[in-house]
Amino acid sequence: MKVYKDYGDLPKIKLPLDQEVCISDSTIRDGAQMPGIVLKSGHKVRIYDYLHEIGIEKLETFVYNERDRKAIELMLDRGYEVPEVTGWARAKTEDIDKVLQIGGLNETGILMSVSDVHILEKMGLPSREAAEDRYLEALQYAVDHGLATRAHVEDMTRADNYGFVYPMIEKIMEIDPECTIRVCDTIGYGIPFDGVDEPYGIPSITKYLKDEIGVKNIESHCHDDFGFAFANSMAAYWYGANWSNVTFMGIGERAGNAEMEKLLLFLGQRVEGFDKYNLDVITEFSEFMQKEIGIRVPRNKAVVGKNVFSHESGIHAAGAIKNPFTYEPYPPEVVGGERIFLVGDSSGTEVLRYKIQETLRELLDVQITVEKKDPRLKSIQKDIQALYDNEKRVSCISDEEIQGYVEKYFLFEPVVEKNMSRESAYSGEFVPDPLSRKKKDV
Amino acid sequence: MKVYKDYGDLPKIKLPLDQEVCISDSTIRDGAQMPGIVLKSGHKVRIYDYLHEIGIEKLETFVYNERDRKAIELMLDRGYEVPEVTGWARAKTEDIDKVLQIGGLNETGILMSVSDVHILEKMGLPSREAAEDRYLEALQYAVDHGLATRAHVEDMTRADNYGFVYPMIEKIMEIDPECTIRVCDTIGYGIPFDGVDEPYGIPSITKYLKDEIGVKNIESHCHDDFGFAFANSMAAYWYGANWSNVTFMGIGERAGNAEMEKLLLFLGQRVEGFDKYNLDVITEFSEFMQKEIGIRVPRNKAVVGKNVFSHESGIHAAGAIKNPFTYEPYPPEVVGGERIFLVGDSSGTEVLRYKIQETLRELLDVQITVEKKDPRLKSIQKDIQALYDNEKRVSCISDEEIQGYVEKYFLFEPVVEKNMSRESAYSGEFVPDPLSRKKKDV
Repeated sequence: MKVYKDYGDLPKIKLPLDQEVCISDSTIRDGAQMPGIVLKSGHKVRIYDYLHEIGIEKLETFVYNERDRKAIELMLDRGYEVPEVTGWARAKTEDIDKVLQIGGLNETGILMSVSDVHILEKMGLPSREAAEDRYLEALQYAVDHGLATRAHVEDMTRADNYGFVYPMIEKIMEIDPECTIRVCDTIGYGIPFDGVDEPYGIPSITKYLKDEIGVKNIESHCHDDFGFAFANSMAAYWYGANWSNVTFMGIGERAGNAEMEKLLLFLGQRVEGFDKYNLDVITEFSEFMQKEIGIRVPRNKAVVGKNVFSHESGIHAAGAIKNPFTYEPYPPEVVGGERIFLVGDSSGTEVLRYKIQETLRELLDVQITVEKKDPRLKSIQKDIQALYDNEKRVSCISDEEIQGYVEKYFLFEPVVEKNMSRESAYSGEFVPDPLSRKKKDV
Repeated sequence: MKVYKDYGDLPKIKLPLDQEVCISDSTIRDGAQMPGIVLKSGHKVRIYDYLHEIGIEKLETFVYNERDRKAIELMLDRGYEVPEVTGWARAKTEDIDKVLQIGGLNETGILMSVSDVHILEKMGLPSREAAEDRYLEALQYAVDHGLATRAHVEDMTRADNYGFVYPMIEKIMEIDPECTIRVCDTIGYGIPFDGVDEPYGIPSITKYLKDEIGVKNIESHCHDDFGFAFANSMAAYWYGANWSNVTFMGIGERAGNAEMEKLLLFLGQRVEGFDKYNLDVITEFSEFMQKEIGIRVPRNKAVVGKNVFSHESGIHAAGAIKNPFTYEPYPPEVVGGERIFLVGDSSGTEVLRYKIQETLRELLDVQITVEKKDPRLKSIQKDIQALYDNEKRVSCISDEEIQGYVEKYFLFEPVVEKNMSRESAYSGEFVPDPLSRKKKDV
């Protein structure tokens, strides 16, 4: 009989191949390409600081204009060991020269678009062979100049992998056996399930690279157009990739990229013995992105949304008050967040009772237990439901409003409380502050 | 040799088991429980209308208060064949009576929490057996009163499935072989990969229900706390489920539920011969949710985000101008959206050239091609880059600003244009309006 009554009881999982996995960041490169977003050098350095705090291994950046170069200088000045700052280049010697001209970059990504529409229409090249020649030349040039390389195999999920891409990757391996092959699911066509073949299956691509070609370093880079970005990144790890290239909060072109914070959370909370990243800066990092960069975040976004630890509805809030494990995936402290209880149209009396007790505690500075059958609780619940019944109200009840109800029903009316047990602040027994209570379980 | 040069070239996939799959909606039930959201009866009916237009098979609703009942009455008055309106009940005869009291509901969901923390702590029951007794009694009562049933097996991904849940589901099947078993991944612990067993693997749960117990109707209900909600819903289909319970835009408790629009898009665009849902109302539906319900949507949210068809950065925008297939996952018309080109700090000259041509066309009402080497194009690009270089600017360049540059460099300075070929509006050749151009491909 298996019993899971607290976070510690829940079994952790293992990545099937048990390989070491790493994360590379593209927030200030692919992320900054997000329409409507402008990252100043100062922003980039702050992002670099947060990534450093988390422990992300690498970060990539453009090297084209003054702003790019200024940001690189500021980042290198930090002297951090991680993230390593790496460059990005089109498959042209002039681009690779730009990377080389910046002292201190030891690795470059090289864009190698492989779908026919990218080769023939976007790049205007006459053939796949012409593209391959250009890519391999650029790679050779980078290797000859002492750079570590990452082949950004663009639009691989809409390309002829067996007919063109895999043979080209074999040649890449001959030039640089250490080259990291980045599987770019550029338009989000990748599918995370085993058994899906050419050209969409992220498991099948990963397995082919690993088992048939013997690629040592495989990285996924997934876009979210069909909603699979994070699942595809995890699928790549699952079937043998050792790198995942992501952006914080998934910022990026169109529907954006796989979200770094989801990867961090899954690895840190669900995978056996995985603790190399520091997650507790995630909430602060996300607040920075919202306030300083203007990224919009829906309340219900995984990991970083405001609602992730909010409870309003009857059954859920009552459960979370009794024991947060009931309706919370992990304690808020894991990501530096906090639990919030809200009273709204779907609330029952438990969350209201909790809020009233909290308000009384704040007003009177004593621990108070309001009994479930207290008629004043019912009166307040009735007043609130009336607000929603006549459909004038479209938001939650604010803390100030709760205080108004508490003053009206508990303080100004009966001076001697009926049905209300009062205890000193140190009596111990009481609905505990769930935040401080859970801390010992973390 | 495989060549994918347009949407029609890309192979469609099949669900491996080729079963018929359906969608049930929980937007006005689980979705409305989202903290901070208040749905009025009028909102619920509008949502019902949109779901009807899409062709969603079922919808579930609470039946507790006046607002719930009023909304049900309004929905039933519509007389639509789909979605079928179904009820929701705790495992209590009094709740099922409430469903029965509303004429016109023929099915009810019944909440059956199965994790130990839900049974012992949330519900305060003495044992799993006590819970099972209560659930089976309620189910029997619903069946005896002529209702079709859906067993909402809550928190199944943190429960003892082999030791408790599967044996209970066998008893459910004895009482009602048609009962739909809803696998509720209540806290989002489900994992979409094959080979993950007890209690997280959505494939393993689905296969067990189907192959070992012989459940005919299996439904997933997935939450997004670990970012897998949509992938888990698809994994359930992949391994044999025939229903998916979702909410529009994924609204719901905490990180919310699996997003209906992702399911619709994947099924409609990627699965061979699947065309039973009408997708082109999705963008309007999402605008309604944003404007009327106040749902916040990030620009980079798949399917419904503003950026899904926006192009700003150099390589991407240039590619999309040449041929939208280069950097778009599907034509915007599929979901009733439209393509937007933006000029920002990551833009190259191609998107600027496109915007200038568009502006000249609007100002002069003639088709105009600005050549790539036009020095005025470079001047405007220089002016814009200067704005970003000195880091005063943190947003895109508006259409009004583009017009200002066009007037300054093209209209007020040289009256006779150099390097600028002008054609009549009907000459035919010109950077085409990509929207009207793509329509024939859909």
